[in-house]
Amino acid sequence: MMDNIPMIAAGAGLVGLVIAFMLYQQVNKVKIDNQKVAEITKEIQEGAMAFLVAEYKVLAIFVVVVGAALTQLNDMNTALAFFAGAFASVVAGFSGMRSATSANGRTTMAAKNDGKAGALAVSYNGGAVMGLSVGGLGLLGISLVAYWLGAGDANPDLSAAAGFGMGASSIALFARVGGGIYTKAADVGADLVGKVEAGIPEDDPRNPGVIADNVGDNVGDVAGMGADIFESFVGSIIAAMIIASSDGFGGAGFTGASDYIMMPIMLGLIGYVASIIGVFSMFVLKNGKDAAAALRNTTFIAAILFWAGGYFAINQNLIAVEIGVMHSVVLGSVVGIAIGLITEYYTGIEPVFGIKTKAIPHIGEMSKTGPATNAIAGLSVGMMSTFIPILLIAGGILGANYFGGDEYGLYCIAMAAMGMLATVGVTMTVDAYGPVADNAGGIAEMSGLGADVRAITDELDSIGNTTAAVGKGFAIGSAALTALALFAAYTAAITGDLDLTLTNPMVVIGLLIGGGLPFVVAAMTMTSVGKAAGEMVVEIRRQFKEIPGLLEGKEGVKPDSQLCVDISTKAALREMVGPGVVAVLAPVIVGMALGWDALGGLLAGSLVTGVLMALFMANAGGAWDNAKKAIEQGHIDGAKKGDAAHDAAVIGDTIGDPFKDTSGPSLNILIKLMSIVAVVLAGTGKLTQTGLL
Amino acid sequence: MMDNIPMIAAGAGLVGLVIAFMLYQQVNKVKIDNQKVAEITKEIQEGAMAFLVAEYKVLAIFVVVVGAALTQLNDMNTALAFFAGAFASVVAGFSGMRSATSANGRTTMAAKNDGKAGALAVSYNGGAVMGLSVGGLGLLGISLVAYWLGAGDANPDLSAAAGFGMGASSIALFARVGGGIYTKAADVGADLVGKVEAGIPEDDPRNPGVIADNVGDNVGDVAGMGADIFESFVGSIIAAMIIASSDGFGGAGFTGASDYIMMPIMLGLIGYVASIIGVFSMFVLKNGKDAAAALRNTTFIAAILFWAGGYFAINQNLIAVEIGVMHSVVLGSVVGIAIGLITEYYTGIEPVFGIKTKAIPHIGEMSKTGPATNAIAGLSVGMMSTFIPILLIAGGILGANYFGGDEYGLYCIAMAAMGMLATVGVTMTVDAYGPVADNAGGIAEMSGLGADVRAITDELDSIGNTTAAVGKGFAIGSAALTALALFAAYTAAITGDLDLTLTNPMVVIGLLIGGGLPFVVAAMTMTSVGKAAGEMVVEIRRQFKEIPGLLEGKEGVKPDSQLCVDISTKAALREMVGPGVVAVLAPVIVGMALGWDALGGLLAGSLVTGVLMALFMANAGGAWDNAKKAIEQGHIDGAKKGDAAHDAAVIGDTIGDPFKDTSGPSLNILIKLMSIVAVVLAGTGKLTQTGLL
Repeated sequence: MMDNIPMIAAGAGLVGLVIAFMLYQQVNKVKIDNQKVAEITKEIQEGAMAFLVAEYKVLAIFVVVVGAALTQLNDMNTALAFFAGAFASVVAGFSGMRSATSANGRTTMAAKNDGKAGALAVSYNGGAVMGLSVGGLGLLGISLVAYWLGAGDANPDLSAAAGFGMGASSIALFARVGGGIYTKAADVGADLVGKVEAGIPEDDPRNPGVIADNVGDNVGDVAGMGADIFESFVGSIIAAMIIASSDGFGGAGFTGASDYIMMPIMLGLIGYVASIIGVFSMFVLKNGKDAAAALRNTTFIAAILFWAGGYFAINQNLIAVEIGVMHSVVLGSVVGIAIGLITEYYTGIEPVFGIKTKAIPHIGEMSKTGPATNAIAGLSVGMMSTFIPILLIAGGILGANYFGGDEYGLYCIAMAAMGMLATVGVTMTVDAYGPVADNAGGIAEMSGLGADVRAITDELDSIGNTTAAVGKGFAIGSAALTALALFAAYTAAITGDLDLTLTNPMVVIGLLIGGGLPFVVAAMTMTSVGKAAGEMVVEIRRQFKEIPGLLEGKEGVKPDSQLCVDISTKAALREMVGPGVVAVLAPVIVGMALGWDALGGLLAGSLVTGVLMALFMANAGGAWDNAKKAIEQGHIDGAKKGDAAHDAAVIGDTIGDPFKDTSGPSLNILIKLMSIVAVVLAGTGKLTQTGLL
Repeated sequence: MMDNIPMIAAGAGLVGLVIAFMLYQQVNKVKIDNQKVAEITKEIQEGAMAFLVAEYKVLAIFVVVVGAALTQLNDMNTALAFFAGAFASVVAGFSGMRSATSANGRTTMAAKNDGKAGALAVSYNGGAVMGLSVGGLGLLGISLVAYWLGAGDANPDLSAAAGFGMGASSIALFARVGGGIYTKAADVGADLVGKVEAGIPEDDPRNPGVIADNVGDNVGDVAGMGADIFESFVGSIIAAMIIASSDGFGGAGFTGASDYIMMPIMLGLIGYVASIIGVFSMFVLKNGKDAAAALRNTTFIAAILFWAGGYFAINQNLIAVEIGVMHSVVLGSVVGIAIGLITEYYTGIEPVFGIKTKAIPHIGEMSKTGPATNAIAGLSVGMMSTFIPILLIAGGILGANYFGGDEYGLYCIAMAAMGMLATVGVTMTVDAYGPVADNAGGIAEMSGLGADVRAITDELDSIGNTTAAVGKGFAIGSAALTALALFAAYTAAITGDLDLTLTNPMVVIGLLIGGGLPFVVAAMTMTSVGKAAGEMVVEIRRQFKEIPGLLEGKEGVKPDSQLCVDISTKAALREMVGPGVVAVLAPVIVGMALGWDALGGLLAGSLVTGVLMALFMANAGGAWDNAKKAIEQGHIDGAKKGDAAHDAAVIGDTIGDPFKDTSGPSLNILIKLMSIVAVVLAGTGKLTQTGLL
């Protein structure tokens, strides 16, 4: 049985990809019988695809250069795995985008022609293509790599598997940063001129930046998020495999390592099958009254099946690992869900499990004294929101370590990450559903469809906002545990001396430098958004001034949306290079100049501040956004849409845009990418302790 | 010779205090022959003293409770040292405030009656009373403690000395947090109603919040900063002494530890004498044309004398330590100055050594598209500004470790901190000079003195802004090295097993929790400022509405400033408790619940994020402030006072107020206080590795 796990898993991955393709065809069957919807859908799809193609061209250069460098380290296997990881991530991103941009307008049409259940099904299936692609390609790829490297043999050398993760991570960082800059340049630019200066509504078709804004939602939230989760998924599997294959794993004379090496693939397989079942359960659930519950339940069904399957596999001796491994998996899932709920508590308007949120009313209240106090309130809510998630992550580590004991403690921490990620097929589906529903609403607005259509898309969109908040918390939590697992893999992969004691000055130096890098990357990405949004503002102002009749809404006068799409595309491609290079080179430079100890410190330092800054920025941004919405919906006494408090809240929301959609999410990947680069470096064995190659 | 060092140092401290008293009398000799100036001076002084007395009453309760807890740990010496440290800090803060608030109005009068040289002398001497008090009380106190604990004996037990540092640290945290909340509640509240709503200038006597604002400058910048530096000074001495007295210091069989134990006191003594000479050099320098150069030169004279004295002491065998110790001291000074210059680069308007700053023009430019882009720019400048200082600190650690070698590496890191702090007598003088000059300008404005007087006070004030920025960078840099030295002292003080490897899950858990605490304290203090400023806004609005003729400036109608002073006082006292309790209890709780390893991780984690967040917040705040000033002074093309870009910059400046004057500075102390609490806990030997008392 056990030797066949990689091939079974690869087969399951393939089957899942076929299912994803069938779902894609089903989405495409929905007819678009409204010319405006068809036009806008086409514009968004073309803009998104043009960006992806342009992005992948830049990334091709990067991949070739880094791949060549890896072969120069005389490590052909790692280089091959690197190419495979990058390729799989690109394919996953491409499929998801294709499907999401196709589902946008079709969700709008289904809302018009088939009602809520139909619209829910289309948007969910649009997301499921992404979810099943990410899970399927990840499982397929990592299984083939495991098979190829002989993971089932005694004492296998799996160091090259890290190359696969590094490939996926590199693509992920560029996709997140590039996508984040694209979407926020368009969003901020369109809002500043359209809403603030010209006083026209959001998503107004007269605004030249609106198409770029809609493209951005897909580029950032679908492709960026997908690449992020893809690499967490494969990263956590790789980390667990490397830890289990290291010398001394399981104590002296331990001979059962093979099962521990196979366990993450086994879990990936079980989780993926459970995810497919979860996704299909929507066929039944969609007809219920509560769409939010339907979405949630698809993930719960998958999670419960996954847990049951994992315990079954161990109890039936399908795989010989300690039962504590599964306890850690379950603990990881619980921590992930809890972080999601805490995120909702700090950023949501509605009570969470009956507990009223205080954060949004506080920001709303502080908006009444102007933008400065609104900003101070949002920043402090974001900072405060980091603490419980950090305690939860710490609790997850403590518990996993307890379940694993001395022998399997670090391994079980990687298993906790698997607990968050194994059902990626369905959780990613729900994540990708959000932007599809959001865009469907925008298209309905731009096409001038009736209020009944808007009512449906608004409901689906608002559910999407909640799932997005929970998904972001989940992404950060899983990134933290994955990075920690990769850190453990780094220490396991080093064959020479390694002194990671905090009293070693090299470790402290690494800790400080690593701690500083998330601040640097956050600053770079925020500055990029500011710069790109500035270019967008100039162009939109120009069009309003120079195209006669545009602002007045004269019949037949259309803005030149393509120019705005070009600005976002160019800015994203230009600005994503800097942060990407920093992330790849920082561990290399520190490792070469200061040695393994400092590099270990760097990983730990960037993990701590990266997770904190990611939580701070994502939650501050989410809270500002919803504080604005709370005022608009009349939740804040003495404030309403259009008054000074609302103006202040709009400013806070704009500050939060790059926080929550560019800089914050980039940090998730930064810490994983730096960790996996370190693992690859360690695997080559080329660094010596003194640091010089 | 060596045995006498503590008594000689104590004597020097006493002499310095006498000199401080004489300078105070000299300041008081300046006559105030203008009734308005006299009135305002009196109001500020009374408000400040009332706050200090109220604050010390609260702190007395805290000190008694903590002291009692320390005696319960059966550690009477630590408890006694704790009381002494708290008392010394209170006396230093009290003397400095008394002198600064007395010098405020007298600087104004000197500007009117004696011209620039006279005004410079009065404000400098006002600061010098603080500087010499801080240095003198620190040196006196720590010398007496060292003598009392028999620091010169073979194998002395110096663990109780940490109690002195803990006493100083506790007072410092409350002083910084309370002072920071006081000053910013008044400042933000007065500006929001006065400048923004009522459209009257800053420092306008009609504004009921103006006196509270002026009191706040003294409470926050003088008393808060003084307590902060006081505790860094004694903390670095204590850390070095504990490291040198630990088992195994200097390698097996080493017998020369006594000289290393005495070295920090020796350096404190040399630095203090050098500081007194530096302070007195102002008597000559004040008559030069360039007041900024005069201020700078007093610190350079002291630094050079200090270095020369240190090398002389070693070369002449007055004390038997490796010469690398002095190299580390000099390196520390250089790192401190470099951090100050980098701070100036990121937050200043003028070029630094001919290098043009890009940060301020960037924020100015981004102000043109509104408050949101101004805020994004300020935040990203703040984040980016952390990196070079972090590299400099890392470089300092690397260099000190190199100079110290395997035997004295950690000790030399503490010595690098001494390099920043030994000339505290003069650096603190320059720091305290700033708010005195600032207040002198405010008093001139409020009293309606002529333009020639304003010209002098404006010049002195603007020099003060630069020294404040440099001083803040210096304070953070020295806090980082002091906290690191205390961390090393913690590891040295633990007699049981200690595993601080980064692969120990307990260390990682501690690292995460510790990393989160600065975010929590920053959030708490920002929220407090927001709340208190809100109360202030309500009161000032009420007075403008209910006091007839106030806003119109009718002859004889005065605002009720006392009510605003009361609001700030009460808010500060109420809100300082939370962060203070968090800082003291966090290490105790983590130590008790999770053990020594986790506590070590906590210290390292809080050190990393604390330093980064402190730099981020201080520099973002400073940059926002000066971006506003740059627009007012015409440095930003296409923007000027009163236009939309300036409005946006004013909002950014207000966001920055709690950043740079409350939350940021609080973090310096947080990390030192938690470290010293851990050292005290370690010294009692009552914690076991499993964590339970």
